Amino acid sequence: MEGQELPYVLIDCIGGKHGVYEDHVEFLEKHFHLVTMKEYLENKKFLSKKIRAIYMWYHKPVINEELLQSLPNLKIVANSGVGIDHLDLKLLSSYGVKVSNTPFVVSTDTADLGMALMLASSRRLVEGYQMAVSPDTEYFPADWVGAEVSGATLGIVGMGNIGYKVAERAKAFEMKILYHNRNQRNKEEESSVGAIYCKKIDDLLRQSDFVLLSVNLTPQTCRLIGKRELELMKPTATLINISRGLVVDQDALVEALQNRVIKAAALDVTYPEPLPRDHPLLQLRNVVITPHIGSATKKTRRLMMENMTDSIEAGLAGLPVPNEVLL
Amino acid sequence: MEGQELPYVLIDCIGGKHGVYEDHVEFLEKHFHLVTMKEYLENKKFLSKKIRAIYMWYHKPVINEELLQSLPNLKIVANSGVGIDHLDLKLLSSYGVKVSNTPFVVSTDTADLGMALMLASSRRLVEGYQMAVSPDTEYFPADWVGAEVSGATLGIVGMGNIGYKVAERAKAFEMKILYHNRNQRNKEEESSVGAIYCKKIDDLLRQSDFVLLSVNLTPQTCRLIGKRELELMKPTATLINISRGLVVDQDALVEALQNRVIKAAALDVTYPEPLPRDHPLLQLRNVVITPHIGSATKKTRRLMMENMTDSIEAGLAGLPVPNEVLL
Repeated sequence: MEGQELPYVLIDCIGGKHGVYEDHVEFLEKHFHLVTMKEYLENKKFLSKKIRAIYMWYHKPVINEELLQSLPNLKIVANSGVGIDHLDLKLLSSYGVKVSNTPFVVSTDTADLGMALMLASSRRLVEGYQMAVSPDTEYFPADWVGAEVSGATLGIVGMGNIGYKVAERAKAFEMKILYHNRNQRNKEEESSVGAIYCKKIDDLLRQSDFVLLSVNLTPQTCRLIGKRELELMKPTATLINISRGLVVDQDALVEALQNRVIKAAALDVTYPEPLPRDHPLLQLRNVVITPHIGSATKKTRRLMMENMTDSIEAGLAGLPVPNEVLL
Repeated sequence: MEGQELPYVLIDCIGGKHGVYEDHVEFLEKHFHLVTMKEYLENKKFLSKKIRAIYMWYHKPVINEELLQSLPNLKIVANSGVGIDHLDLKLLSSYGVKVSNTPFVVSTDTADLGMALMLASSRRLVEGYQMAVSPDTEYFPADWVGAEVSGATLGIVGMGNIGYKVAERAKAFEMKILYHNRNQRNKEEESSVGAIYCKKIDDLLRQSDFVLLSVNLTPQTCRLIGKRELELMKPTATLINISRGLVVDQDALVEALQNRVIKAAALDVTYPEPLPRDHPLLQLRNVVITPHIGSATKKTRRLMMENMTDSIEAGLAGLPVPNEVLL
């Protein structure tokens, strides 16, 4: 590539709360000529023909038809993370633009967070912390207890990369593992984590102490867990969501938690994010919420950036795109 | 036993924040004639000769020489939990009183809590929760990250029942596991969890991303982790304590956390418990504290009660006492 001009790649901005990480820029600038949205808007005439890829870091920049029309040489959008429900794949395809994501590098950290949420919720870690630090605490009551994770039954809905890694971890806690998935995993995969397939999600919901959601958000999985499904769950069960907020009917969940139809929920995802500050989910004691941090570790974010770089380079070279998302 | 009088067993009280759990009483009363401290003090003359065992639930009733002198037929003290540092074993032995604890039933839940603390601290779960529910939160910053647990190096100090169960769990997170113990485990046990023995604790401290303490509190382990040991740890490392507060020199820990000698601490135990409300450990962002809840699950507390019943019955029948604590 010596002497050649680096490919122009559109990003939202650098640094700040939402921008490309400052410590990723050095690496990226070895591969690309980065153009921020601000620079693009200030010099649209020259840059619109130059830009050949969009590096979409945490849903930014927003891609709409107007932007697509103005970038005639756009070949690929590299999206951070797994979920691509914020992208209109049909529209992008109609403009001949490919899309990639980073499903493999995020799966370990997201599975870890699933385990963290299950343990924290079951053992009441956040409530325990609040008691331990509260100015009003005079003693620790001996009758304050949680529920055990080891030995309990875990139902995993969506046995992709993340779900399978959750199962690997849960096995070490001697959990009974059930799973529901479009397709049954092969016998070797099943027996290696000791997971039992439930063709019907209802069977999984009825038996599980913890129901963990790790599905892609699609029209088929949107509001997959609603009033009916929550009512099938045990009154002692906990719902854990590490996929997308919209997989759960949030109003039904609030009602189920308020009426103790289920015991608790642990959610890394909601809709919208953050929730409105007066949302009932924020007031309930039996809910642990985290700010969508499934892949939020330094190492994984670096690997995501490197994956996205690989995808853009392959896409621009006309090679098969690693982690291409197909329609 | 039909027709026979049940043995008299002294307890502190029933119910309330510190008493014997109300839902354990039915079971206990099938085996024992329970005498509360209040009843004992009101009818000392009759009861002092009757009482043959003390059921010590969460450090109560307090056993001192005066009490021992007043109970001439006392044969056994059954202590809940593992730690017996609140009991004077020599004194009890000089009165011919045996002591039991419940080390096996608590190990699974305590290991689970160790994993919960490691994951919560590393992924900043409590801070994340606070951000998710704070009235001031307007957005979730994309640059908010934690550190990965999977793949990191875990150093376990004290490879007893609890330490070993932590290792079993950590292995599923593909962690590199080091351990320090008085005695090296046999090769089969080591390879089954992939743990590497460090004869010198210093070697473990220098290499670990997480140092987890699961030792008994003895004169040898009291303040085992002090200024010198904390300085050997990586500046990116986290200290996790699920044993007894006194295993750590708390002043040295505060200083190390304030000066970023180590990154963070996750503590289920402190001294005293609770800490004074103005204690610096309660003010630090890089500290997760829980209110000594290692064994705090409903199921385990029930098993503890059953274990204690078995020990008392064996002790009174002159049989070998399960879980006897020897001097």
